[in-house]
Amino acid sequence: MIREKYARLAYHRFPRTTAQYLGHRRVDAAPLEEGLPDFHPPPLPQEDPYCLDDTPPNLGYLVRMQGGIPFVYDNKRMLEHQEPHSLPYPDLETYTVDMSHILALITDGPTKTYCHRRLNFLESKFSLHEMLNEMSEFKELKSNPHRDFYNVRKVDTHIHAAACMNQKHLLRFIKHTYQTEPDRTVAEKRGRKITLRQVFDSLHMDPYDLTVDSLDVHAGRQTFHRFDKFNSKYNPVGASELRDLYLKTENYLGGEYFARMVKEVARELEESKYQYSEPRLSIYGRSPEEWPRLARWFIQHKVYSPNMRWIIQVPRIYDIFRSKKLLPSFGKMLENIFLPLFEATINPQDHRELHLFLKYVTGFDSVDDESKHSDHMFSDKSPSPDIWTSEQNPPYSYYLYYMYANIMVLNNLRRERGLSTFLFRPHCGEAGSITHLVSAFLTADNISHGLLLKKSPVLQYLYYLAQIPIAMSPLSNNSLFLEYSKNPLREFLHKGLHVSLSTDDPMQFHYTKEALMEEYAIAAQVWKLSTCDLCEIARNSVLQSGLSHQEKQKFLGQNYYKEGPEGNDIRKTNVAQIRMAFRYETLCNELSFLSDAMKSEEITALTT
Amino acid sequence: MIREKYARLAYHRFPRTTAQYLGHRRVDAAPLEEGLPDFHPPPLPQEDPYCLDDTPPNLGYLVRMQGGIPFVYDNKRMLEHQEPHSLPYPDLETYTVDMSHILALITDGPTKTYCHRRLNFLESKFSLHEMLNEMSEFKELKSNPHRDFYNVRKVDTHIHAAACMNQKHLLRFIKHTYQTEPDRTVAEKRGRKITLRQVFDSLHMDPYDLTVDSLDVHAGRQTFHRFDKFNSKYNPVGASELRDLYLKTENYLGGEYFARMVKEVARELEESKYQYSEPRLSIYGRSPEEWPRLARWFIQHKVYSPNMRWIIQVPRIYDIFRSKKLLPSFGKMLENIFLPLFEATINPQDHRELHLFLKYVTGFDSVDDESKHSDHMFSDKSPSPDIWTSEQNPPYSYYLYYMYANIMVLNNLRRERGLSTFLFRPHCGEAGSITHLVSAFLTADNISHGLLLKKSPVLQYLYYLAQIPIAMSPLSNNSLFLEYSKNPLREFLHKGLHVSLSTDDPMQFHYTKEALMEEYAIAAQVWKLSTCDLCEIARNSVLQSGLSHQEKQKFLGQNYYKEGPEGNDIRKTNVAQIRMAFRYETLCNELSFLSDAMKSEEITALTT
Repeated sequence: MIREKYARLAYHRFPRTTAQYLGHRRVDAAPLEEGLPDFHPPPLPQEDPYCLDDTPPNLGYLVRMQGGIPFVYDNKRMLEHQEPHSLPYPDLETYTVDMSHILALITDGPTKTYCHRRLNFLESKFSLHEMLNEMSEFKELKSNPHRDFYNVRKVDTHIHAAACMNQKHLLRFIKHTYQTEPDRTVAEKRGRKITLRQVFDSLHMDPYDLTVDSLDVHAGRQTFHRFDKFNSKYNPVGASELRDLYLKTENYLGGEYFARMVKEVARELEESKYQYSEPRLSIYGRSPEEWPRLARWFIQHKVYSPNMRWIIQVPRIYDIFRSKKLLPSFGKMLENIFLPLFEATINPQDHRELHLFLKYVTGFDSVDDESKHSDHMFSDKSPSPDIWTSEQNPPYSYYLYYMYANIMVLNNLRRERGLSTFLFRPHCGEAGSITHLVSAFLTADNISHGLLLKKSPVLQYLYYLAQIPIAMSPLSNNSLFLEYSKNPLREFLHKGLHVSLSTDDPMQFHYTKEALMEEYAIAAQVWKLSTCDLCEIARNSVLQSGLSHQEKQKFLGQNYYKEGPEGNDIRKTNVAQIRMAFRYETLCNELSFLSDAMKSEEITALTT
Repeated sequence: MIREKYARLAYHRFPRTTAQYLGHRRVDAAPLEEGLPDFHPPPLPQEDPYCLDDTPPNLGYLVRMQGGIPFVYDNKRMLEHQEPHSLPYPDLETYTVDMSHILALITDGPTKTYCHRRLNFLESKFSLHEMLNEMSEFKELKSNPHRDFYNVRKVDTHIHAAACMNQKHLLRFIKHTYQTEPDRTVAEKRGRKITLRQVFDSLHMDPYDLTVDSLDVHAGRQTFHRFDKFNSKYNPVGASELRDLYLKTENYLGGEYFARMVKEVARELEESKYQYSEPRLSIYGRSPEEWPRLARWFIQHKVYSPNMRWIIQVPRIYDIFRSKKLLPSFGKMLENIFLPLFEATINPQDHRELHLFLKYVTGFDSVDDESKHSDHMFSDKSPSPDIWTSEQNPPYSYYLYYMYANIMVLNNLRRERGLSTFLFRPHCGEAGSITHLVSAFLTADNISHGLLLKKSPVLQYLYYLAQIPIAMSPLSNNSLFLEYSKNPLREFLHKGLHVSLSTDDPMQFHYTKEALMEEYAIAAQVWKLSTCDLCEIARNSVLQSGLSHQEKQKFLGQNYYKEGPEGNDIRKTNVAQIRMAFRYETLCNELSFLSDAMKSEEITALTT
């Protein structure tokens, strides 16, 4: 119920079935499509994806950030009277009460036992289902015409744009630029223009000799439990100059090289036809100018692809910016990240490029090494972002709450004027404290990784009941935090958690040209997944993604948003109806247990 | 010493280092290149690979098979006098003595303990090497210009031609033929011509609806420990008609469809540039006509590719042919397999096509389900092939001995007249009895699989000392006999056994377009292999392969045939010299232990 409240406020998704069992009659009456997030359908083939016309008028609203929370005012007078526009605004006190409620729940002995047993039961139940119905499932798939694992839609639900090409691709691109334009000016240092040749000269290397080994961007045994070493792998040949030149959107060339590579990746996806990707681009929050620059990069280099939808990742590195005196407070960082979005939403006329770019952005991510420990314990006594001026980094939960709060208000404002909304899709549960998973349980639509659900039966069971999508990347984990054979993906899938497969960083982790297929192939081989398993994961990935309602109808079937077998169109998904029925019945069974218990408790309360 | 004898007789390879420690002074004097197998270099780009001129003259020799052994006679008179041409001919009695010697050795308690300990030592020693030198190895590779894992040569050392395309490729090809030529006559049954459309009509299917699932050629959980089910996966849609039409060299279309698919696979290898393949084509031994037909298939459809070299596989299914009364005795099967080769060798003028085809054939394989048990125990009391007329199948060791015997005589004859020789490369140690590995230890140049070496420390140590190449296919094993995580490849590699990676059957086992890369990628990910490990495996695969001396010099370096670091050219192989030195020193150390022990035994014998 707590998650449902937060989800509804932010236009995140919450499963109808679970809501029904929680006893909300209201749900039954509401039209089915309500509560779906709003994403722009892709432009039609004859439409120009970069068309800057057709921009809604300026509403003239004003926005002020107070204590990290944005407040919208209809006009100057209302601002002076401190009477904000009628939108839901988050309340920190309620939030901390809700948080502590769940924190208490996950450590409660009997609850732990109950969840642990239910999860074991779910796993055994699936084994039984597999033994009994495996051949029937396969028979269903065999008689399903024209659709197999290769032509069901798959979305790479977690991939960083700066590592979306594989190492060989990056190498080839670097060599190609050096061959074709060595004398082009590609950087400027203290007023001196530097050519590509000079860049490589200063590094004492000839790109002709460059190999995948000397490029050294691939993670290996050395990166296991060393996120710091992993981060430095983003520097080709260990040189941050090359990272700036090839993998950034802001540089002397206006991010041209990076755009070209991303477009090459996009062309490959378009050719493969059935693969989609949601690359994540960074907004750091050092300056409000980052947004218009990113939008310009996108439009100027024509980066749009029908097979890509974009997510904005915000690194949790306030402490670095603060210590370099780039930011006075955490509040300023939030302002730099979110105020431009409010302004572009209120007055798209004056922010046409950003307004256009936001059509293709479907969510936000919060990223960094989760294993870093924080001394601060977030509560309603914590300093508000405006007065968070110390060099200490705020903890994970603090970041998540304030990002959620901003996205929530922004989504409500955008919904009000018929614009697309955003999903909050943070990295969560890759490492570190399991309390991260509690924060995300409230604030996130879906998460990336979720490995640590392994360690908390209560949270795992809650994630199951709420069917929170989890984008898992076992090959990434294998190089960083958890060996492949110990990865819980197979176990989560069996229990019925809503998991998808994603690549995270093809540049660092994958060997072949088709990173997502490599991810599926290895999972299929090592865990002996059946075709039905693979297609179920692929279907999950489309559901989890920021693809529009129209695309999802096309890829999964007209009724994809309905739960259970009626939401499945086997002709499009190649998932057996037997499997769908099993999943649905199993979920209903778990929920009815809980609702029966709640009812009998009510009766006991009434009669005593 | 025993293996060395058999290897020398058949022009198989035996490591010089091992031979030296065994105390053969002779070795030091012999030129280094001696003892290398003789393979035809590929035709130059301007040469016609199908040129039937330039055929050596007829020697006029006669060949007679006696007791399964071929005897060559200079002329009719010599035949009448039973005075065969001077060639080494194998002797069954010696062979059975040698066999029983090794059989006694592998069950000898103290020998088992010794070998077990040495193998453990080898493994620990490698771990130590890895801990100390991993970074130095990688540094060597990083400073090695222009060469990385992607552009070192790799050979797929074990792949069946009938399954060399992946399932998606086969599916696309079937659909394509149906779209472009549905009315073509593709078969004839009882005098009635049948079109492609009729083939599919009779199967009640429309190829448009065909999917990878309904094609059903992929191995899955159902094939584990079920070689019978696996074999039936060769029938697309479970229909043997389609196997005959698409995956055979002999049918109404003269194997055209199969040739076209194989050529598509070859084009992809040529484009990839660094990948080579050694597909295996079947000769069954039902009739001597199989050879000229196969040669014609090869030439007529122009199947030659510079990136492919061919191996002939002989299925061990005498019993099936016998029960169908296609063969009177096992001896007849041997005649059908080998006599045409002797004739083409003696008189190429009258067998021009076969003579040409044999230029591109580099070896023989013996294939079937090894887990099938045989009641017969091979010894010098066993019935000779001529009188093996029962419906019982001869055991594995019987097949191997007679194939070896024929190949050995054939190689000597071919060597005498300057023609290429063949390697015997049987499937061995995939399942069944470990005695198979004893037979192959004597008769094979190298083997495919070798899984069961896991179970015999003595044999494993012997395979190590003799550096017998083993083409391993962990993904194939994972679907048939052994789970991926239990595969001994990593352990064998660490100990220093000469292992390579191969795909076996991409159609049944792999998901991506690049099956060999998938094999390497999964091994790299699951076992966390380093770049140096991968490049060492790739180098092993080239050494193991039937690529010619010239190609090996080009791909591995001028001195590739020398052992130890001097045989390695890091600029071509990307294998660190530190690794090569470690391997060489380790092998020498093991050998010197043994030779010291032998010497001290000699001394003891002298003094007592």
